[in-house]
Amino acid sequence: MISRVLSAELPRHIGERVTIAGWLHRRRDLKSVTFLVIRDRAGLAQVVLPNGGPGPADETSPAGEETVLQVEGFVVANPQAPGGAELTEPVVTQLSGPAEPPPFDLYRPALTATLPTILDHAPTSLRHPLLRSGFEIAAASAAGFRAALDAASFTEIFTPKIVESATEGGANVFRLDYFGRPAYLAQSPQFYKQAMVGVFERVYEVGPVFRAEPHDTGRHLAQYTSLDAELGFITDHFDVMPVCRDAVAGMVESVRERASSAMQLLRATLPTVPAEIPHIPFAAAMDMLSRETGEDVTGEDDLAPAHERRLCQWAEREHGSELLFVTGYPLTSKPFYTHPDPARPLYSNGFDLLFRGTEIVTGGQRLHRHEDYLAALAARGLDPAPFAGYLQVFRHGMPPHGGFAIGLERWTAQLTGAANVRQVTLFPRDLHRVSP
Amino acid sequence: MISRVLSAELPRHIGERVTIAGWLHRRRDLKSVTFLVIRDRAGLAQVVLPNGGPGPADETSPAGEETVLQVEGFVVANPQAPGGAELTEPVVTQLSGPAEPPPFDLYRPALTATLPTILDHAPTSLRHPLLRSGFEIAAASAAGFRAALDAASFTEIFTPKIVESATEGGANVFRLDYFGRPAYLAQSPQFYKQAMVGVFERVYEVGPVFRAEPHDTGRHLAQYTSLDAELGFITDHFDVMPVCRDAVAGMVESVRERASSAMQLLRATLPTVPAEIPHIPFAAAMDMLSRETGEDVTGEDDLAPAHERRLCQWAEREHGSELLFVTGYPLTSKPFYTHPDPARPLYSNGFDLLFRGTEIVTGGQRLHRHEDYLAALAARGLDPAPFAGYLQVFRHGMPPHGGFAIGLERWTAQLTGAANVRQVTLFPRDLHRVSP
Repeated sequence: MISRVLSAELPRHIGERVTIAGWLHRRRDLKSVTFLVIRDRAGLAQVVLPNGGPGPADETSPAGEETVLQVEGFVVANPQAPGGAELTEPVVTQLSGPAEPPPFDLYRPALTATLPTILDHAPTSLRHPLLRSGFEIAAASAAGFRAALDAASFTEIFTPKIVESATEGGANVFRLDYFGRPAYLAQSPQFYKQAMVGVFERVYEVGPVFRAEPHDTGRHLAQYTSLDAELGFITDHFDVMPVCRDAVAGMVESVRERASSAMQLLRATLPTVPAEIPHIPFAAAMDMLSRETGEDVTGEDDLAPAHERRLCQWAEREHGSELLFVTGYPLTSKPFYTHPDPARPLYSNGFDLLFRGTEIVTGGQRLHRHEDYLAALAARGLDPAPFAGYLQVFRHGMPPHGGFAIGLERWTAQLTGAANVRQVTLFPRDLHRVSP
Repeated sequence: MISRVLSAELPRHIGERVTIAGWLHRRRDLKSVTFLVIRDRAGLAQVVLPNGGPGPADETSPAGEETVLQVEGFVVANPQAPGGAELTEPVVTQLSGPAEPPPFDLYRPALTATLPTILDHAPTSLRHPLLRSGFEIAAASAAGFRAALDAASFTEIFTPKIVESATEGGANVFRLDYFGRPAYLAQSPQFYKQAMVGVFERVYEVGPVFRAEPHDTGRHLAQYTSLDAELGFITDHFDVMPVCRDAVAGMVESVRERASSAMQLLRATLPTVPAEIPHIPFAAAMDMLSRETGEDVTGEDDLAPAHERRLCQWAEREHGSELLFVTGYPLTSKPFYTHPDPARPLYSNGFDLLFRGTEIVTGGQRLHRHEDYLAALAARGLDPAPFAGYLQVFRHGMPPHGGFAIGLERWTAQLTGAANVRQVTLFPRDLHRVSP
């Protein structure tokens, strides 16, 4: 391994000669001295290079920003330097030849480029500390999701992403050539996670899902990372919501532990997750929205984005919570596997979780009887034949069950205040973009 | 939540009335008594039902195996019962109507059905304790991989699975219709994990990869779960191998902690992972194999399966290790991004890890200079144009780096002694199979 200390460790080595290595984040040539700021995974370190001298300055003179350097030097305290220490009397070595300058300055506080330019150059732009931070937060969130569910005796699963028929029944599905036959990319692990309730009772998956989204918006992607959970032996969706709450609380806690400096860099704050997240039934929400806005929305079967924002303001005001469950959506707005509310069959045992003005989780109780599936498909005019593989599990005994799914990128966008979900998606895929 | 105790908890409730819930694993009607064995996620529990009495027996009489039942009863000690306790005076409730009998008996010690039948009915066959065990071991392995790399300051990434061009350059790639344009399923996260070394220095991903494998063998799949890692600031591949060793050791440790009863059920044993896994250079291995077999294989550029088995026997004999690194394969057998050995340019800075007779990991040092990529592509007659998105990152400063990938299913098969990797793959995908 290239022997080195990390930038953040320099203050512990004052008075010693050490080696650091990283990218030339910023080079500033002053009259008598050149400052090199080296970026590594732990942060930034300043190197002071006397000008005009022999040796070291010559070797680095052609090196532009982003060149990978190794610097051996003497650590001295300097309150002005990042971390309070800097390297003097340096010997600089290039680790891979001079870099071409990137199409934007990575050392500036913010990237001054358009989103398309940033995305076209994602392998390089992601090096910017602000962009990088979003992915640290996403990684910490995924780890927290898994930790919360591991603690609740869930088992992790890895399910097929190539399927015989469109699982959610919709049109937004990618078709592929599967050894000469048609097949599709999975829109969700829905059917597989339900089937695995029959095996492990409680399962989760963290994996990609695919939607041929014709919507060109700031919140739709053709591929995103879905945090999926499903559990059996529930009474109804009110048994799923506390598990969802714990998963979100685990994500928040993990971000606090693993990515607090990334949150600080982005000036983002973590929500407090109440022990019990407040909830409002869909019908009550629509009544309230109709009263508040003067517009009758009681006939709608789903929440408009403006409604989601308004409901979140209400939850903040009434309950001091940035999170709000909306329960019992009309069945028509939910997929065919949704369990109806036995007391009000036009409404579902489903829920959404709203966070800072937008839906970040969808969940609910699912049908668990074979005959109910046949009836639900028939009611929607869907042919049961393509679902045969899915439906077989319900012939052989399935307990009442339910689950939920969290879109990792949308969650991260809400948490960090990103205006566009692409800003917190590694190499996003959409209607127009399939590279890099 | 349906109020219940788990089967494994019964011994702690002797003398109490409790409720359990699960699948009717086995029903045995004797002359004066019926035994119901209930299976839940924690194991099996026996229920004793007196025959001829009113009530409970009537309700369960139509219930065949796999019906989901809730049973309230009185816990008594019985050394013959699973776990040493059983339920008497039961009140039995069906939770979802009677199940149709599955096409095989799940209560038998082993599933007596052909592999195609087992796979056709995977949602049900996976409930068999032996099959289920493989997936507990896979889940524990993935958790151990992540834990080992988390501890070594790696960052988790989630990369695109839809790509503009075939990453490994091979023909075994699935083509899809991407909003009217052609695109491909990623054969590996190789290029993305390399790019992300430029951002986080050390990254890993646990996710699906796709190969349009024309081989119809017991070890090839069209989709598998790849445990990928990549790290920067290495000297050469000998810096990657210890990280790979730690990842495998973490997997073994996690299986020991989380899935030891699954390992016992399968009569499988964990390997001891040496602090330093022995290694043999490829050329030395070929010399030895030529001597041992009398057949000159020194001109070969890769190991045949029989050679892998023989080398593992040698490692076991000479080093007492079930794991063996083979280093320095000829460059011709490795992908174009492989770094050559500077001292022997026809050989690579690559390695494989063999385990119990087969290769389970491939890894090595990658090229990190832009000009080296152009030369490597030219040497193989590959057009650099489709790789433009990939190659741009090497223009902007990349440190020496390398990594490795472990196929989760193949690892699990080797660990459990499964003859066919499909036995330890949830809903496998291959040349002939795209459902369920």
